Amino acid sequence: MATYKHFLVDTPAPYVAHVQINRPKKLNAFFEEMWLELKVVFDTLSVSPDIRAIILSGAGDRAFTAGLDVQAASEAGVLKQQEGKTSDVARKAVGIKRHVQEFQDCISSIEKCEKPVICVMHGIAFGLGLDISTCADIRICTSDVRFSVKEVDIGLAADIGTLSRLPKVVGSFSWVKDVSLSARIFSGDEALRVGFVSHVLENKEAALAKGLETAKLLAEKSPVAVQGTKELLNHARDNKLADSLRYTGVWNSAAIQTSDVERAMLSGLKKTKPRFEKL
Amino acid sequence: MATYKHFLVDTPAPYVAHVQINRPKKLNAFFEEMWLELKVVFDTLSVSPDIRAIILSGAGDRAFTAGLDVQAASEAGVLKQQEGKTSDVARKAVGIKRHVQEFQDCISSIEKCEKPVICVMHGIAFGLGLDISTCADIRICTSDVRFSVKEVDIGLAADIGTLSRLPKVVGSFSWVKDVSLSARIFSGDEALRVGFVSHVLENKEAALAKGLETAKLLAEKSPVAVQGTKELLNHARDNKLADSLRYTGVWNSAAIQTSDVERAMLSGLKKTKPRFEKL
Amino acid sequence: MATYKHFLVDTPAPYVAHVQINRPKKLNAFFEEMWLELKVVFDTLSVSPDIRAIILSGAGDRAFTAGLDVQAASEAGVLKQQEGKTSDVARKAVGIKRHVQEFQDCISSIEKCEKPVICVMHGIAFGLGLDISTCADIRICTSDVRFSVKEVDIGLAADIGTLSRLPKVVGSFSWVKDVSLSARIFSGDEALRVGFVSHVLENKEAALAKGLETAKLLAEKSPVAVQGTKELLNHARDNKLADSLRYTGVWNSAAIQTSDVERAMLSGLKKTKPRFEKL
Amino acid sequence: MATYKHFLVDTPAPYVAHVQINRPKKLNAFFEEMWLELKVVFDTLSVSPDIRAIILSGAGDRAFTAGLDVQAASEAGVLKQQEGKTSDVARKAVGIKRHVQEFQDCISSIEKCEKPVICVMHGIAFGLGLDISTCADIRICTSDVRFSVKEVDIGLAADIGTLSRLPKVVGSFSWVKDVSLSARIFSGDEALRVGFVSHVLENKEAALAKGLETAKLLAEKSPVAVQGTKELLNHARDNKLADSLRYTGVWNSAAIQTSDVERAMLSGLKKTKPRFEKL
Amino acid sequence: MATYKHFLVDTPAPYVAHVQINRPKKLNAFFEEMWLELKVVFDTLSVSPDIRAIILSGAGDRAFTAGLDVQAASEAGVLKQQEGKTSDVARKAVGIKRHVQEFQDCISSIEKCEKPVICVMHGIAFGLGLDISTCADIRICTSDVRFSVKEVDIGLAADIGTLSRLPKVVGSFSWVKDVSLSARIFSGDEALRVGFVSHVLENKEAALAKGLETAKLLAEKSPVAVQGTKELLNHARDNKLADSLRYTGVWNSAAIQTSDVERAMLSGLKKTKPRFEKL
Amino acid sequence: MATYKHFLVDTPAPYVAHVQINRPKKLNAFFEEMWLELKVVFDTLSVSPDIRAIILSGAGDRAFTAGLDVQAASEAGVLKQQEGKTSDVARKAVGIKRHVQEFQDCISSIEKCEKPVICVMHGIAFGLGLDISTCADIRICTSDVRFSVKEVDIGLAADIGTLSRLPKVVGSFSWVKDVSLSARIFSGDEALRVGFVSHVLENKEAALAKGLETAKLLAEKSPVAVQGTKELLNHARDNKLADSLRYTGVWNSAAIQTSDVERAMLSGLKKTKPRFEKL
Repeated sequence: MATYKHFLVDTPAPYVAHVQINRPKKLNAFFEEMWLELKVVFDTLSVSPDIRAIILSGAGDRAFTAGLDVQAASEAGVLKQQEGKTSDVARKAVGIKRHVQEFQDCISSIEKCEKPVICVMHGIAFGLGLDISTCADIRICTSDVRFSVKEVDIGLAADIGTLSRLPKVVGSFSWVKDVSLSARIFSGDEALRVGFVSHVLENKEAALAKGLETAKLLAEKSPVAVQGTKELLNHARDNKLADSLRYTGVWNSAAIQTSDVERAMLSGLKKTKPRFEKL
Repeated sequence: MATYKHFLVDTPAPYVAHVQINRPKKLNAFFEEMWLELKVVFDTLSVSPDIRAIILSGAGDRAFTAGLDVQAASEAGVLKQQEGKTSDVARKAVGIKRHVQEFQDCISSIEKCEKPVICVMHGIAFGLGLDISTCADIRICTSDVRFSVKEVDIGLAADIGTLSRLPKVVGSFSWVKDVSLSARIFSGDEALRVGFVSHVLENKEAALAKGLETAKLLAEKSPVAVQGTKELLNHARDNKLADSLRYTGVWNSAAIQTSDVERAMLSGLKKTKPRFEKL
Repeated sequence: MATYKHFLVDTPAPYVAHVQINRPKKLNAFFEEMWLELKVVFDTLSVSPDIRAIILSGAGDRAFTAGLDVQAASEAGVLKQQEGKTSDVARKAVGIKRHVQEFQDCISSIEKCEKPVICVMHGIAFGLGLDISTCADIRICTSDVRFSVKEVDIGLAADIGTLSRLPKVVGSFSWVKDVSLSARIFSGDEALRVGFVSHVLENKEAALAKGLETAKLLAEKSPVAVQGTKELLNHARDNKLADSLRYTGVWNSAAIQTSDVERAMLSGLKKTKPRFEKL
Repeated sequence: MATYKHFLVDTPAPYVAHVQINRPKKLNAFFEEMWLELKVVFDTLSVSPDIRAIILSGAGDRAFTAGLDVQAASEAGVLKQQEGKTSDVARKAVGIKRHVQEFQDCISSIEKCEKPVICVMHGIAFGLGLDISTCADIRICTSDVRFSVKEVDIGLAADIGTLSRLPKVVGSFSWVKDVSLSARIFSGDEALRVGFVSHVLENKEAALAKGLETAKLLAEKSPVAVQGTKELLNHARDNKLADSLRYTGVWNSAAIQTSDVERAMLSGLKKTKPRFEKL
Repeated sequence: MATYKHFLVDTPAPYVAHVQINRPKKLNAFFEEMWLELKVVFDTLSVSPDIRAIILSGAGDRAFTAGLDVQAASEAGVLKQQEGKTSDVARKAVGIKRHVQEFQDCISSIEKCEKPVICVMHGIAFGLGLDISTCADIRICTSDVRFSVKEVDIGLAADIGTLSRLPKVVGSFSWVKDVSLSARIFSGDEALRVGFVSHVLENKEAALAKGLETAKLLAEKSPVAVQGTKELLNHARDNKLADSLRYTGVWNSAAIQTSDVERAMLSGLKKTKPRFEKL
Repeated sequence: MATYKHFLVDTPAPYVAHVQINRPKKLNAFFEEMWLELKVVFDTLSVSPDIRAIILSGAGDRAFTAGLDVQAASEAGVLKQQEGKTSDVARKAVGIKRHVQEFQDCISSIEKCEKPVICVMHGIAFGLGLDISTCADIRICTSDVRFSVKEVDIGLAADIGTLSRLPKVVGSFSWVKDVSLSARIFSGDEALRVGFVSHVLENKEAALAKGLETAKLLAEKSPVAVQGTKELLNHARDNKLADSLRYTGVWNSAAIQTSDVERAMLSGLKKTKPRFEKL
């Protein structure tokens, strides 16, 4: 595994990577250098043949992440950067748009990662923490987690993905609007009830154990099948049924020709664990 | 606040409007003049700088609304209107289509209203009551509420918005079809379980109090942030992820230039309540 | 009712058809001839004027269906068929794509059926069983049912509809990905909690009784209203709000001209059961 | 015909309306009051049973329209209006957005008009003149017409419809970008060559005669057929093929039941002119 | 080649099929049995390994096709069929919708055919003739051809595909509306000028020769490449750019693995004609 | 201007960049290193405040570009790369898909470039040359240019953008399919007739002069207006009308606040050349 400045990345089990946001003294709050590196981490794992499932969590006891480092942003963030350059509203707007798109692209790298990502959240998970977690495939949390779509409290509509993805990962639009408009804190139990997370565990250790168990389960399956399933589900979310079926047929016209099908079937009959070629 | 014939509109708290459907003797059932006025009410509030959150409820003890006033409709409704004009099926169809679109437009004014709308429902909430409430942003109800997608019982597929919006505000398509195909009555508890409402309170008084509390909370935030959040969530519901992210970036390229960001941040640091310019 | 080779079809109540997958000795597992016949069954019921609601279940005590008959598939399935013909990857891909599309079309006949379909599931409901049930309108199950999106376990991304439809029938995307990526078994209670099914009953008998009760309820309503409601909800799932409202207006411009409206209203006033012309 | 302040509306032939932009001294340049009235004109004609085809042209010898009255805009336009109210960029942006949407809605009334609109252009047709003409169904011009997507020359990307519609009414995207990015003037002959207009006539009189001839031809046809054709073509432009075919089937399920089909067929056999009921 | 009742199908060159509408005495006008058989013809050719390109033309000297056989339709068509069954408008509408969809499906078989279809038109090409030709990939005509979107003249908006496809095969929307709203006859030269056809030849013999020459050219290419190109162009027409690029990447991930690439390249170097395996 | 290995980039006029593909000895044929660098060039120009319009051409007398360097591809291209790694069809497919997407992204950088790109083509413009030119905004060519969608001739469906973009830049779908299915060479005059190019000049010198004249014209306009126009036209191409209008309104809510509007208007009145702040 490569070494990163702001992230700890190790492999707790075969084919499983664990990525930790590693700025615990600042509640894992993000500044620009960090999200640029986040993209490098996930772009690398996406095509690494040694990785089949990824766990994403926050280092330390207190937070998954407190979100954007507001102090850093006010000193060196996009508004600060625009200030010196121009006073023209339209030109500032172009600068902001470029910045937001780059920021979005960095966070979207989690969703675009070909391998499934399991996000394990504890303590504080505010603002950017939700942008990040809505990009993950499976969400797990602790019972003490405190979630908030925090942006409204700093005068902003969240723009790094939460407002785009939350209505597509949770079915209750009334709840989505409630938490997004009010910035109120909600708990792991509430998150489970509405389907934002799949599991709530008693503490960080247990939540990570659950994440690892799930990651190992996925890593034992055919990577052709698992990665195809992620791709097809993400495609389905965004497309009409007929388009999704058509895309699925074309996808599988190559994927089904894999030797994994035969290996998986034989292992099923023989009750052995199949081994699959790297991908 | 302006005075309306069929709606009571007052301001129970600063920047909060309360709109009551006001025909309690007839269970707040609607006839054409009422939905035309409903649009005037919400179009006005949408651009009123003195309003930042809206509560919508039904006057009286018995009903949010019983829906369409069927008797009025059979005497003066669209079918009656077409009858005298022509016997040609295609020409009648054009007349009906115009009528349905105008009716839809009136109800959609709630969704298009730039300010968040909190719908508080008690007693009977049938037919048009669901068309209306699916346009609202946050739904709250009493434990005695009786909901029904009633239209099937009068030989109709609901056409004023319920069938278009319900699959997008509730995640369980099996449940959506169950209640829409059968017109069966469902309770507040069931509505909470599937995510149709966000909160169930013991009676109308408590539900209105919850609605007011929520409205006040939203009204204290930056209106730039709150109204942007509503717009971006509604856009996300209807668009592909990539389009939603692109739209968000453009939206915020102007919105982020607001002074509200600085005010909100400063207030956060100083632990004071921020004051925001009207919008 | 016509007689079929692999399906039992009878009419347990007026206007209600009951379709049973009828290969209980093999856990109702499917081979090609069966899904071709499934399409014939549903295409026929779709336009049969004597049917207004359909129940779909599996014969025998042990399974709704175990899914694809893997043994049959490995002996005579698509991969086997391609083998003899060509060794060119692209040509095989074309053959597979044609096969998958035909297979998808057969299963989609349940969704395209103009009459509402209530799927009652017990015992094993694996793989193709989920493809089939996600096409149904209302899902009911027993408490002993064992569900699994099984395909990943045989090296495949599910391609007959589950991955395309599951994100649209269940609101929690975290849960959808969890079960689709892991192929883990989930229970009726879990299915109810996330909204995949609408009701869980104690055993097959009770579940079928619930299905029949629901089907009879739907069969008593105006078929113009019920079938229009199914069509408009399916359209809404796949389309933007504005398109859905426009389509609804055009649909109802003909549908509202039915005599069912008057019959239903009169019956409502007179407290009698309306009778509706066949459709 | 009603009388309007800024438009001349008369009926040069049965079922044909002629709308003239009537501010010839100012080259038919538009200020706000005018586009608000334009919407009233077309909304009225849209549902007038006495009108089946509409000609739109500019009064006087010199111009279809010079576009936005820039002087009026700089004195009382949207920017001027925002100025006094607020200096907050985000609040100004909201005000501008509301203004642009209202302006767009007014011009779109031409496209939404149920009756076909034939736009006849001569002399100057700049800026807003193109926004307007791209909403029309059929475009005719004189050989002396001078077209320009003028907005770039006043520091603006055209926002009242030209940039949204021009790529959909002309097939050559290279040409569309050429004229939109450069604001260069193009002639009627060039417009014909790329398909922007259908006919070029030698002068205004001849162009109006051609417009009238076409309008009369359309006005003699079944209004059910003509208005359905306009609706279905506009739907097709914006939708996928499968959606367009589906919408067409539903549309015609009512429209085909018109008596116009029999009348038209009989007249065809008898070589007489059919007469159709008003619509 | 199979023998058909209403179509002549032969193979004028290797891998080339020629389909002729064969009812010359009635100007190749269509009745229901014919379009049902048309679908059989094209569904068969679509998967026939011996065919790589198809020419479609009309038998006899006088017409490609006069379109729908209006007399047959008035005696046994959809309206006639509905008449006896029910007088309920909504029920008639359902019957009509089913009929239109089946009719559309038959004609769409030309577009869905995996092999490219070259449509050669002469004499009369009215109504259904345009529905059919807009499904083809390449259109060729004679200089004496007379085209008309005829439906408006019999009180109908064309519903078998012309209104859905014409705006997508011709770039000038003004022209599309002109001919669709007016039903006026247009010539081969006009068709060439607007891009509806690719070539105009002096007579039927020359047009067929041009069609055959084109078909032979396509039939000599790699069928993997040609059929993939047809599929990807049809996908592009209906989808956003990003979706089209994504689909293309997945499509070619299998297709590029064909041995045709090597064969084609080698032949290119050696200046020989490549031979490709059947598809 | 930065210096590049495979591209010459200079500034022939203020705010105008000229990018030349610079491998004339090999007919400017591309290998992987080149398209990776192409993206760097255009990503850099996209945000360079000193550039407002870009000309793209091929160095040397003989070719814009012959397309993919087939020899290099067969020695070091994607198929070669996959060969060594795996023999599993599905795994090869994943590798190919990654490669194609990266390749597409590089070429798409021309389209995503915020500044308008004018493509000037002479001599040979085959295969990848068309992928590249369909990304440009305005196309100009010489009368001796020879165009070909060449991929079919090497056993491939073009996958780097031509098949996705050509149907959206040229209105005649019959012509698009003709040239894409047959790989036949077409001339500049034919390209002009169908609207693929905007201008044909007698030789390379004249074509470059025309390109430069156009680029200078665009570079003199407000960059806020020009770049907004490019963005909105590209958005319109891919979106429904209502979405495009909505996006336009939001875009201009910031853009209109630019000082360029006032500067442009004043210059218009004073007949002077406006000067605009960098963007």
